[in-house]
Amino acid sequence: MTRLSDAGEFEVIRRMLAAAPAGGPGVVLGPGDDAALLRPVPGEDLAVTTDAFVEGRHWRPGWIEGEALGARLAEANLSDLAAMAARPRWALLSGGLRGDHPLADLESFQRGLAGALAAHGAAVVGGNLTAVEGAEWWSLTLIGGVSEGRAFRRAGARPGDALVVSGRPGRAGAGLRLAIALGERAREEAFAPLLAAWRAPRARVSLALALAGTHAVGAAVDLSDGFAGDLAHLCEAGAVGAEVELERWPADEALTHAAGVLGVTAEALRMGPSDDYELLLAIAPAGLPACMEAAGREGLPLAVVGRFTDRPGALEALAPDGSRRPLGGAGWDHFAGR
Amino acid sequence: MTRLSDAGEFEVIRRMLAAAPAGGPGVVLGPGDDAALLRPVPGEDLAVTTDAFVEGRHWRPGWIEGEALGARLAEANLSDLAAMAARPRWALLSGGLRGDHPLADLESFQRGLAGALAAHGAAVVGGNLTAVEGAEWWSLTLIGGVSEGRAFRRAGARPGDALVVSGRPGRAGAGLRLAIALGERAREEAFAPLLAAWRAPRARVSLALALAGTHAVGAAVDLSDGFAGDLAHLCEAGAVGAEVELERWPADEALTHAAGVLGVTAEALRMGPSDDYELLLAIAPAGLPACMEAAGREGLPLAVVGRFTDRPGALEALAPDGSRRPLGGAGWDHFAGR
Repeated sequence: MTRLSDAGEFEVIRRMLAAAPAGGPGVVLGPGDDAALLRPVPGEDLAVTTDAFVEGRHWRPGWIEGEALGARLAEANLSDLAAMAARPRWALLSGGLRGDHPLADLESFQRGLAGALAAHGAAVVGGNLTAVEGAEWWSLTLIGGVSEGRAFRRAGARPGDALVVSGRPGRAGAGLRLAIALGERAREEAFAPLLAAWRAPRARVSLALALAGTHAVGAAVDLSDGFAGDLAHLCEAGAVGAEVELERWPADEALTHAAGVLGVTAEALRMGPSDDYELLLAIAPAGLPACMEAAGREGLPLAVVGRFTDRPGALEALAPDGSRRPLGGAGWDHFAGR
Repeated sequence: MTRLSDAGEFEVIRRMLAAAPAGGPGVVLGPGDDAALLRPVPGEDLAVTTDAFVEGRHWRPGWIEGEALGARLAEANLSDLAAMAARPRWALLSGGLRGDHPLADLESFQRGLAGALAAHGAAVVGGNLTAVEGAEWWSLTLIGGVSEGRAFRRAGARPGDALVVSGRPGRAGAGLRLAIALGERAREEAFAPLLAAWRAPRARVSLALALAGTHAVGAAVDLSDGFAGDLAHLCEAGAVGAEVELERWPADEALTHAAGVLGVTAEALRMGPSDDYELLLAIAPAGLPACMEAAGREGLPLAVVGRFTDRPGALEALAPDGSRRPLGGAGWDHFAGR
C-alpha cells in the first residue's frame, strides 16, 4: 500500500488531480501555479465560505472516511452557499495529513469531494497539503456566484413571516447519537434514514435557487448547528422572536423510534445539535404558495413549523391550546464542547 | 487569563473581529452570515490561493507567535498573489485551536494578520474556528484581482530570458537553521537580518504590481520552497533550463557569516530550502531596463543572477571560465521531510 510519505508531495497532488481533474466553467488557470485564475460572471457577486473537519471530531473512522468524507466536507460548504441562494463555482482544499495516510484513500476522498461539487457545477481549482503528526484535518473554501442584491441573508425575517424548514431536521444528530450509543447495532434497518442523514447529507442548493426565483424568501440560514441554535441566529439577525408549533412538525417514525432507544424526547432530537444541512427560512405568508410550488417541483417538500414574532430573542413552543413555553435545545459550541 | 474554552465560540469570534474589524472595498456583506458577499471589479479575473501553517512545523513558539504569526501567515499567501501580479482583496481564515489557547494571543494574531493584509488593501471577510486536541493550525485563503490576461504565470520563460531575483534569497532558511542550531545565541546582532527574513518576511506585492506595468515579465514564481526548488518549477512549466552565475549574486555578509557558523557553504544556503517570499522572474533582455527602473522606484532592487537556456530541466551553475556543473540544493517536500 502506497502511503503519502512514499509518494512525496508533488506525486500526491498529481494523483489527487488524476483521481478527479480540476477545472471547469470560469477556470482560466487551474492547479499548478502560485494561484488559480477564475473569471467571475458579470453582474454577479461572490459568496464565499470556509468550513473545516477535524479527525475524531467531525468524522469517525469506520463510519465516515474516504469518498464519504470528501462528499460530506463538500456538502457542509455547499450548504452555506445554499443558505445564500448562491450558485457554487470554485473550491480550494487545504489539508493536514499524516505521512502514513494511504494514497488510495486520498484519491477516494478527492473523488467524493469533486463528485459532490460537480453535482452543482462546481470544481476544485487549487489547494495546499501539509504534513501533521496528530489528528488529520481538512479545510475547504467555496466560492459561488449570486446576482447582485439577490442573496438570501440571515437578517430579514419579519413578525408574521412563516417559519419554514426543508426535510427532517434532527435526523443527522440522532444518527450520530445512535452511532455513539449503540456502535455496530446502530446499523439496523430502522435507523437507516438517520444514519444516512448524518453520513451523507445533501445540501439544498437547487432548492435554494428555485426558491430565490420566487423573490418571497425574507431570510435564510442552513441547519449546521441544530434547529434551536440556528433559529436563534436568524432571530438575532432580524431582531425578531419565533414560536414553533411542534404539532405541525412532519411526522418522523425513525426519529421517534430513535428517541425511545436513546431515552430522550423527539423534541430534544429535533431542536438540539444536529448538522442536517437543511434550510430554515422566513417567508411572508403571501409568498408561501409560490415557495411550496417551487419546492414541490424540486421534489423537496417544505414544512411550515411556526411563525416569527415581534418578541425579539424569545424562542417559544406554542401548544395547540395557545399556551407558550421556552423552546428546548441549543446549538453546538466548538470550544465549550456543549 | 481568559482562554477560548471560557469564552465560547461566538464570543471568541466577536473578540477577534473587535481586535481587527472586517470589511473594506468590495465587501457587500462581511462576517456573521452563512457566507460573505463580495463584489469583484469588472474586467478583473480572480487570483485565489490557500496556504496553511501547523504548530511546531511552520511556527516555533518563542520565535514566532501571536501578532508575528498572523502577519507571517498573511505574507505567505500575499506572496502567492504577488507571483501572479494580482492585487490582494479578501481573505478567509480557518483555524484549529485548543480550548486552553489564551484569547489575548488570538486577538494579537488577528491584529497581525489583518495589519499585514491591510498594508496591501486586503481584509479578512470570513472564517471558521474549530477545536483541536493536539497541534494547532491555521489555513488562510486569499482572493485577489488581476486584469484579464495580465497575470504572471510560471509558464512563459524563454531561452535567453534573464533570471532575476528580488532581495536576498536564502536568508530566511539561514535564520531558521540558526534558531534550531544555536537556540538563544541566534539572537546575536550579526544574525539579525537573517532572523528577520525568517520571522517577518514581506511579500513583494507592490513590486509585482510595478513590474506588471512594464509588460516585460515572461514568467514568475515566489520563493516559498527555496531558490533551486522554485527555479525547477519555473523551468518545468516553461520547458526550459537555467544557468546561474553564482558570482553575480548580491553580496550578503550576514549569510556568509552564518554559513561559516553552520558549517555549510553560502551556496547551500542560497539554493536550499528557504521561504523568503521573494520573487523569481524571467525577463526578456529588452525589458530589463524598464523592470530595473520600476523596482528602483519601489526601493527593492532586482539582481540578474543568470539566464534561461534551451536545455529543458537542466539547472546549472556557470563558472566565470564558462564551465558548468549541476546546481546544488533542493526544495522542501512536506511528506518526505526533505
